[in-house]
Amino acid sequence: MQTKKSENFSEWFFELLKKADVVDQRYPVKGFLVHKPIAAFAERQIYKLFEEELEKKGHKLMRFPALIPESVFAKEIEHIQGFTPEVFWVEKAGTDELPERMGLRPTSEAAMYWMYSQWIRSWRDLPFKVYQECQVWRYETKHTRPLLRDREFYWIEAHDVFATREEAEKQVLEDMDTTEKVLHEQLGLPFLFFKRPAWDKFKGSEYTFAADCVMPNGVVIQQPSTHFLGQHFSKAYDIKFTDEEGNEKHVWQTCYGPAVSRILASLIMMHGDDKGLVFPWSIAPYQVVIVPVLKKEADTEAIMNKCKELEEKLKAMKVRVVLDDSEKRPGAKYYYWELKGVCLRFEVGAKEAAEGFVTVARRDTGEKERIKDEELKEYLERVPGEILKNLREKADKNFENVLHEASSLEELKEKLEKGGFVRVPFCSVELDGEECGGVVSKETGGKVRGKLHGADEKPAEGEGCIVCGKPAKEYVYVAKEY
Amino acid sequence: MQTKKSENFSEWFFELLKKADVVDQRYPVKGFLVHKPIAAFAERQIYKLFEEELEKKGHKLMRFPALIPESVFAKEIEHIQGFTPEVFWVEKAGTDELPERMGLRPTSEAAMYWMYSQWIRSWRDLPFKVYQECQVWRYETKHTRPLLRDREFYWIEAHDVFATREEAEKQVLEDMDTTEKVLHEQLGLPFLFFKRPAWDKFKGSEYTFAADCVMPNGVVIQQPSTHFLGQHFSKAYDIKFTDEEGNEKHVWQTCYGPAVSRILASLIMMHGDDKGLVFPWSIAPYQVVIVPVLKKEADTEAIMNKCKELEEKLKAMKVRVVLDDSEKRPGAKYYYWELKGVCLRFEVGAKEAAEGFVTVARRDTGEKERIKDEELKEYLERVPGEILKNLREKADKNFENVLHEASSLEELKEKLEKGGFVRVPFCSVELDGEECGGVVSKETGGKVRGKLHGADEKPAEGEGCIVCGKPAKEYVYVAKEY
Repeated sequence: MQTKKSENFSEWFFELLKKADVVDQRYPVKGFLVHKPIAAFAERQIYKLFEEELEKKGHKLMRFPALIPESVFAKEIEHIQGFTPEVFWVEKAGTDELPERMGLRPTSEAAMYWMYSQWIRSWRDLPFKVYQECQVWRYETKHTRPLLRDREFYWIEAHDVFATREEAEKQVLEDMDTTEKVLHEQLGLPFLFFKRPAWDKFKGSEYTFAADCVMPNGVVIQQPSTHFLGQHFSKAYDIKFTDEEGNEKHVWQTCYGPAVSRILASLIMMHGDDKGLVFPWSIAPYQVVIVPVLKKEADTEAIMNKCKELEEKLKAMKVRVVLDDSEKRPGAKYYYWELKGVCLRFEVGAKEAAEGFVTVARRDTGEKERIKDEELKEYLERVPGEILKNLREKADKNFENVLHEASSLEELKEKLEKGGFVRVPFCSVELDGEECGGVVSKETGGKVRGKLHGADEKPAEGEGCIVCGKPAKEYVYVAKEY
Repeated sequence: MQTKKSENFSEWFFELLKKADVVDQRYPVKGFLVHKPIAAFAERQIYKLFEEELEKKGHKLMRFPALIPESVFAKEIEHIQGFTPEVFWVEKAGTDELPERMGLRPTSEAAMYWMYSQWIRSWRDLPFKVYQECQVWRYETKHTRPLLRDREFYWIEAHDVFATREEAEKQVLEDMDTTEKVLHEQLGLPFLFFKRPAWDKFKGSEYTFAADCVMPNGVVIQQPSTHFLGQHFSKAYDIKFTDEEGNEKHVWQTCYGPAVSRILASLIMMHGDDKGLVFPWSIAPYQVVIVPVLKKEADTEAIMNKCKELEEKLKAMKVRVVLDDSEKRPGAKYYYWELKGVCLRFEVGAKEAAEGFVTVARRDTGEKERIKDEELKEYLERVPGEILKNLREKADKNFENVLHEASSLEELKEKLEKGGFVRVPFCSVELDGEECGGVVSKETGGKVRGKLHGADEKPAEGEGCIVCGKPAKEYVYVAKEY
């Protein structure tokens, strides 16, 4: 890597995507990315983590069509108005003009809820919890950035239906727990949930909570968001059920959308270093590389035999292992596999072959240690957890000092330079605060992320909005985002 | 099920898809299907079987964009001419007219090979073996049928690149082996590979081998096909490499495309019965259902405790288990779970609770047996293989008498009524035989499937083509297809 992470973070990231061959941006459609094996594999693993967690919580996998007729899409006015500028439209097929144009899904509320209205009839059908894994397409007008903001990206969307407001609001909390379980516990990405201001909620929802991660350069990335839809969509799509007393009612809904490509980007940004990619064990395309260290001709056979035995042994343990027996020098191999983010490097030389041990180098710490052959199994059972713990602790440490405070626009601007979130008194998170939110963006380059979830805090009497000076109803947090 | 499989096969199949809630055809775009949890789950499992086999054989997973610019698509003339009538076109995004229209991928040669030409430079880059899992869209002009012929379907496509013709032709054989390993060995679907006649090969290929399954009604379904592309695409997309001697050459290519949705359809058709779905263990969304059989109030607690213990025990063994503690009568539960294709039913009554055993009913055989609690683990390790073996053997038996012979059009027509493949002497499988192929279709309702792979057979001197009477160069097989 030519660029240092600590010196120019963004450039370091884009250089890394290219050098480690994570994605290819040369596909001839702007904002459409080719996911090379490292990205495709890691994303598949991230999908699996969510599948497990969502299914444990009662969600069923389904698949819905990618094309949505305009009339179906148009049923929820606020929703279609929000998404229309971003929809790719299909109007022709073969040489036929289609009777109605169809949008490529930018999200699947319309497709799914049209079907939900056919399926849901009775309180016995509820709760109804479904997710799908798919790609979505959005004609982004903002500058696209690989994995962070593409016009085609991979995500999961869970769409849940309940009999009551209370159950639906509980689901929003459950979605937050899913985010904690996957992003933080299993991928080592800490975040905070913010209730977005009314002008920045998901179009068609009552309110939105979104997880914000802070990257090592202090810049924020939005991660999974979970939306309380109330009855907006159930009224638009006529999703009703008959309750136990025989009354017909509209259902209450939520949706939740982890963007897998963007989670991968954050993982790389958070854990990567100046040598290249660093992955937790569960995600890593390669978990172990075996590198023979050949010096004397006489030792070659014993070393290569040991390497091959190790490879077989690890394969049998379902470890994703590669034996690098190419012509390159060991140093060049170390460099290459560090770039690719392999978790462990097994060095096998004459001493290792003769004395029954392996020299193991850990990618996350850079530490080397000797592991006896007979202790290898126990080591490989233990080390995945240790790597994850180490990565998570480093990320948590980076996350310790991300909350700051300011009481004027000037102070806000200054504190935003440090990165993270800056708390300010603010007139309102309802629509009447939108104008002040705009001033914050324009004056400071930061964006109002909303109210911090779980923080029971209110401005003191007499505190004024940082922009308009009117009595501040809320504390909100401001951050610079990708 | 109202319709019997043996009486009206097609109607039985469509009724089953609906009653067992496999897919929903009511989505408001013709030929676009909603895959309900049973279909989505089973398809995911089929994907996993192919992933494992393809990766074992050196393929890497990647992901390519769904939109292909017309100019990229148009590079291989025969290919675009073949697919143009089936492409959905995107011409607008938001309110913008796009500078060039883009096709929704009907298959990914164009998208992938455009990139391959950027990546492949040297003999060191070869062989280059990549697959992706995705949905494709084809504006079918034929009658659509759920899972068998949709306008949106799920598949895998592997696209491999080699330095020589020989290696590429070997890959075609390897793809056939992959089909055998997954379809036959793991899913119990027997098939035969036919080399398609020149007028029915994949557009842009030199030749095509396709696997044909025979359904219990004698009708044939085309399954994975593998194509030798020669240098057609490498010349069109300019994919070149420098060999060890420094000479620049065009690469040799193959592609392979298992349609996962269609494999699911064949699975259901082959193994299902008049009670409903029947799945091999690896694919089954539900592997075990536990049904408490409650008679006397006094036994209820002991029975329910045993059911819950069993549920926990099976979950710990990673068995996909459901405890049906609903209010329904046991008989209604049996009926419901048989319809859904659960592999095993555990019945737990007072006797089972008191005497330490479980009554197990197998979905595939209908047989019941008593399994002692302490033998359950061993039973569950053994029975998945037994179920698969039984299903495969039944299917193989059904496949025993599928080859017939005829020497006139009348005889062909008559033999086709029995189902399966009918061998006939035929003038030519090259393009000059296309007219006779058309006559076969028109006169008999059958279609020329091509030459049987592995059968070293030639018509005797003097035998004439079944249609035109000219000297027959080949034996070809004719079948009715879905």
